[in-house]
Amino acid sequence: MKSKGLLIVFSGPSGVGKDTVLKHLLEKDPNIRLSVSATTRPPREGEIDGKDYYFLTKEKFQEMAENGEMLESAGYCGNFYGTPKKPIEKWLSEGLDVVLEIEVQGGAQVQSKCPDCVGIFILPPSLKVLENRLRNRRTDSDDVIQKRLMVARDEILQAVHYDYAVINDTVEQAAEEIIHILHAEKHKVQRDNNLIERILNHA
Amino acid sequence: MKSKGLLIVFSGPSGVGKDTVLKHLLEKDPNIRLSVSATTRPPREGEIDGKDYYFLTKEKFQEMAENGEMLESAGYCGNFYGTPKKPIEKWLSEGLDVVLEIEVQGGAQVQSKCPDCVGIFILPPSLKVLENRLRNRRTDSDDVIQKRLMVARDEILQAVHYDYAVINDTVEQAAEEIIHILHAEKHKVQRDNNLIERILNHA
Repeated sequence: MKSKGLLIVFSGPSGVGKDTVLKHLLEKDPNIRLSVSATTRPPREGEIDGKDYYFLTKEKFQEMAENGEMLESAGYCGNFYGTPKKPIEKWLSEGLDVVLEIEVQGGAQVQSKCPDCVGIFILPPSLKVLENRLRNRRTDSDDVIQKRLMVARDEILQAVHYDYAVINDTVEQAAEEIIHILHAEKHKVQRDNNLIERILNHA
Repeated sequence: MKSKGLLIVFSGPSGVGKDTVLKHLLEKDPNIRLSVSATTRPPREGEIDGKDYYFLTKEKFQEMAENGEMLESAGYCGNFYGTPKKPIEKWLSEGLDVVLEIEVQGGAQVQSKCPDCVGIFILPPSLKVLENRLRNRRTDSDDVIQKRLMVARDEILQAVHYDYAVINDTVEQAAEEIIHILHAEKHKVQRDNNLIERILNHA
C-alpha cells in the first residue's frame, strides 16, 4: 500500500531564490511534483497550458471556485489566480509529494484548509544579504529595491505561520534540508492512522 | 550563537533493536550524546559509574528526586531508577542532541515535562518479525517468548504518544531516518523565537 504524498506549501520573500531551490529539489527527489496554478490572464509568448499555468476563461475559473475546486484563489490586476485541487489530489493519492509555491496570503488559505500540509518558508541569511542579492542583479533602481525590501520584510514576518524555516545560504544545502523535512514528516505518527494496526496484525 | 540541542525520547518494544540503531546513530552523528540513568542498585561486574549508570545511594536518589533533579524516576524490584536532569541540560545548552533511551512509562513522564522534546518510537516491521527475531536468538523458551510478545504488543500501542515512528527494517536505514528527523526538527519555526528578528536585523 502506497501512502499518501505530502502537500508542501512553499513560500518566501521575493528575491530569496525559491525557484532555484525548487529546481535543485526536483533534481534530487524524483518523487516531487510542482503544482500548476490556474489564471484568467492570457498566455504570454511561449507559455504552455497545463505546464506554466492552466489558462481558463473568467467564467470557467469562477465556476470552479464556486464548486470548491480551487484550493485558494485571489484577484490581481483584474485577473484571477488560483490553485486547482484535482491535479494535486491525484498526485497525492499516487504517493507523490506536491509543492505549491505560493505567496503568503495564498499560503495561509491553503494551510487553514489543509491542516496536514507542510509549510516551509525560505529565508535569506539576512535582510542585508537579500538587499545585496537584489543590487547585484543590477536590474532595479534604488527606489524599486527599497520597495521590494519593505515588502520582503512584511513577508518574512509571516514565517511564523509556517512549520519550518529553511535559510537559503546555498541552494544545495537548502534543498538538502527540505529533503530531510519531507523524510521526517513521513514518519510522523499522526499521519498514519493504521500504522500500529498494520504492525500488530500483518505477517 | 549555538542553538540549544534536541532532547530525544527514544522508546520501542523489547527486542526491536534499539541499542543497535543507537550505536549506528552515534557513529553517524557526532553531535549526539546518550543520557546516563541513575540507579540505586549496586554496580555489576565491569559497570562504570557515570558511564553505564550513575550509582547512587537510596538517600541521595530520594534527595535528588525531591529537589526536582530527576527528569523521571521509577521503582523496580526494590530499587530506584531515574534520569538526572543536570548532565542533560549541560549537553543541550552546548548544542548537543541528547538521546534518552527509556521505556514507555518513563517516556510519557519526560514528554509531559519537556514539551519541546522529540519523541521517537522504534517499531519492528511487524509483530511477526519481532517474534521471529526473538526465536532466532534461541535464548528464550516458547513461554518466555509468548510473554515478551504480549508485553511488546502493549508497548507498541504506546507509539501513538510519540511524535515519530521509525520502522527498524535495517539498522542503517532506521539510523538514517532518525538523522532526517533531527535535521527537520532543527528547522521548526517554533523552536527559534528570535529567528525572524535575527534575519531582519543582522548584517
